[in-house]
Amino acid sequence: MAREVTILTETDLRRLVSLDLPTVNVVERAFAALASGKVVMPPILSMAIPEANGEVDVKTAWIPGFQGFAIKVSPGFFDNPKIGLPSLNGLMILFSAKTGLVEALLLDNGYLTDVRTAAAGAVAARHLAPLTVKIAGVIGTGVQARLQLQAAHLVRPFDRVLVWGRDREKAEACARDLAGALPVVASYEPDPARLVAASQLVVTTTPAEHPVLKAEWLHRGLHVTAMGSDQAGKNEIEPAALAAADLYVCDRVSQCELLGELRCAIAAGLWSRGTPPELGEIVTGLKQGRTSDDQVTICDLTGTGAQDTAIATFAVETARKAGVGTMIST
Amino acid sequence: MAREVTILTETDLRRLVSLDLPTVNVVERAFAALASGKVVMPPILSMAIPEANGEVDVKTAWIPGFQGFAIKVSPGFFDNPKIGLPSLNGLMILFSAKTGLVEALLLDNGYLTDVRTAAAGAVAARHLAPLTVKIAGVIGTGVQARLQLQAAHLVRPFDRVLVWGRDREKAEACARDLAGALPVVASYEPDPARLVAASQLVVTTTPAEHPVLKAEWLHRGLHVTAMGSDQAGKNEIEPAALAAADLYVCDRVSQCELLGELRCAIAAGLWSRGTPPELGEIVTGLKQGRTSDDQVTICDLTGTGAQDTAIATFAVETARKAGVGTMIST
Repeated sequence: MAREVTILTETDLRRLVSLDLPTVNVVERAFAALASGKVVMPPILSMAIPEANGEVDVKTAWIPGFQGFAIKVSPGFFDNPKIGLPSLNGLMILFSAKTGLVEALLLDNGYLTDVRTAAAGAVAARHLAPLTVKIAGVIGTGVQARLQLQAAHLVRPFDRVLVWGRDREKAEACARDLAGALPVVASYEPDPARLVAASQLVVTTTPAEHPVLKAEWLHRGLHVTAMGSDQAGKNEIEPAALAAADLYVCDRVSQCELLGELRCAIAAGLWSRGTPPELGEIVTGLKQGRTSDDQVTICDLTGTGAQDTAIATFAVETARKAGVGTMIST
Repeated sequence: MAREVTILTETDLRRLVSLDLPTVNVVERAFAALASGKVVMPPILSMAIPEANGEVDVKTAWIPGFQGFAIKVSPGFFDNPKIGLPSLNGLMILFSAKTGLVEALLLDNGYLTDVRTAAAGAVAARHLAPLTVKIAGVIGTGVQARLQLQAAHLVRPFDRVLVWGRDREKAEACARDLAGALPVVASYEPDPARLVAASQLVVTTTPAEHPVLKAEWLHRGLHVTAMGSDQAGKNEIEPAALAAADLYVCDRVSQCELLGELRCAIAAGLWSRGTPPELGEIVTGLKQGRTSDDQVTICDLTGTGAQDTAIATFAVETARKAGVGTMIST
């Protein structure tokens, strides 16, 4: 029986999906579904390829109520820049949630991952940051440093941005880009302690293996989203900070225990509060989020297959409405 | 930077890749590479979706010396036949082994899996079956019952085929198909014990959860390939048979322990011979295979990502030489 598969390129997808409130709401729905307990989300398949200085991750999740489920493949080959290619790329495949048939191939080269990752930061900020954020700080200077603050600005329209990174030039470039993209004043802050002290919202976006945010820097009315750690071996937040915060929230506990900030806190014997709440449980009201503007909150984002399923389903629905994409008969 | 991705449909792939000796040799190379110890093959990602009566498996392997590595997604949605769709389908994605960039999408609906699975049976028969096979038996009546005997015939040109299955009509249809496809006389055999007694080569191709081949049926000069078990819960060969055979061989020990016949033998306390040899170790001569025509051998095939990488790489190389496929700029 002839069927059609939709092919969407990165160019198509950049036209179809933006980092805006509808996208944040789609990703929020994925977190809400995670809290329902009916999502099927297996552990990440992760393959390290030492001979090619590469790694490949595969994520997936089946979410009730979504028409499709995505399988996302994210290769990272770290010698690519030497030959003028990006390290990170990949694609998503959308399958029918009812029949398992291939619906669409999303050749996004990692674009949808960038967007859904930043959108999760906005969901965290919406539910955990103080209601008023005047100054937002970012620790890190890469793509996510830019996108995380753009996403957070959708839900907490701060007017001042501070950027810290080990490389001053990169941090200044990041601040310039943010000042161009958002109605904010943005500048490099050479002291990360001062950055945290001045901010009501801080996002850490580094691949650090040793903490870049110290427990002693926490202060009343601060929310921190740590989104850099996605592998055992990475650690952005000093383990004592998790215990010191009024509220520590995981995107997915089973992943944060293995790949997130929680891993180090447990290993250091500094976590004794039992199972932390998940972001979806706070989105749906199953568990309590921030209860006052002066609390200290931390959200640990490792990246979930549920976000991939949500954004891929949304992208394909949008493509079909817009008549975008190449159809292949199979 | 604009790049091109090759899209190959099932129709393309059926023209490009056949179940023939070149294909068997490609799969044999994958097993040889597995024995080299340099292959990276992570555990299978397996997602059961009870609400949709479905499951999805993802397999992959990176093999030194191969230009690409495949990621294969195999959905099985078992309510599909009620609406006129096949239960099994899926696709493979071929990535560059050097850069991780997407090279090709193989929309094979499971065709390449069928072929590489049967080709592994031929590799097992080539290295483990007695040199002369006059009668081959098959237990099971599905697609693999047909393909396994076609593959085995490439390396052991038997002239008589016996088929047993629980459903006599299906077994007779399978025998008719095999008699049409191969220069053999093929017939339904109502007694599986008699089928095994008469055969020098038996392939089991069932999803059985209780053994369909009993230990007491083993006889001098028999080779059995068990290819049906690919999940914990399946069991085709009575556990005592593994211990009774002169040689028991895994496609991959780490998979057979979890998903293959070995799992039940270990659980029953009937396996005490340590780590079994792998098919690749016998292909490369690292371990000893059959040493005389009257030995009893059993090969346990659970299906490896290495086979997927091998056949996907071969299919794309063949497509490029033949100028087949649709190119998408991305």
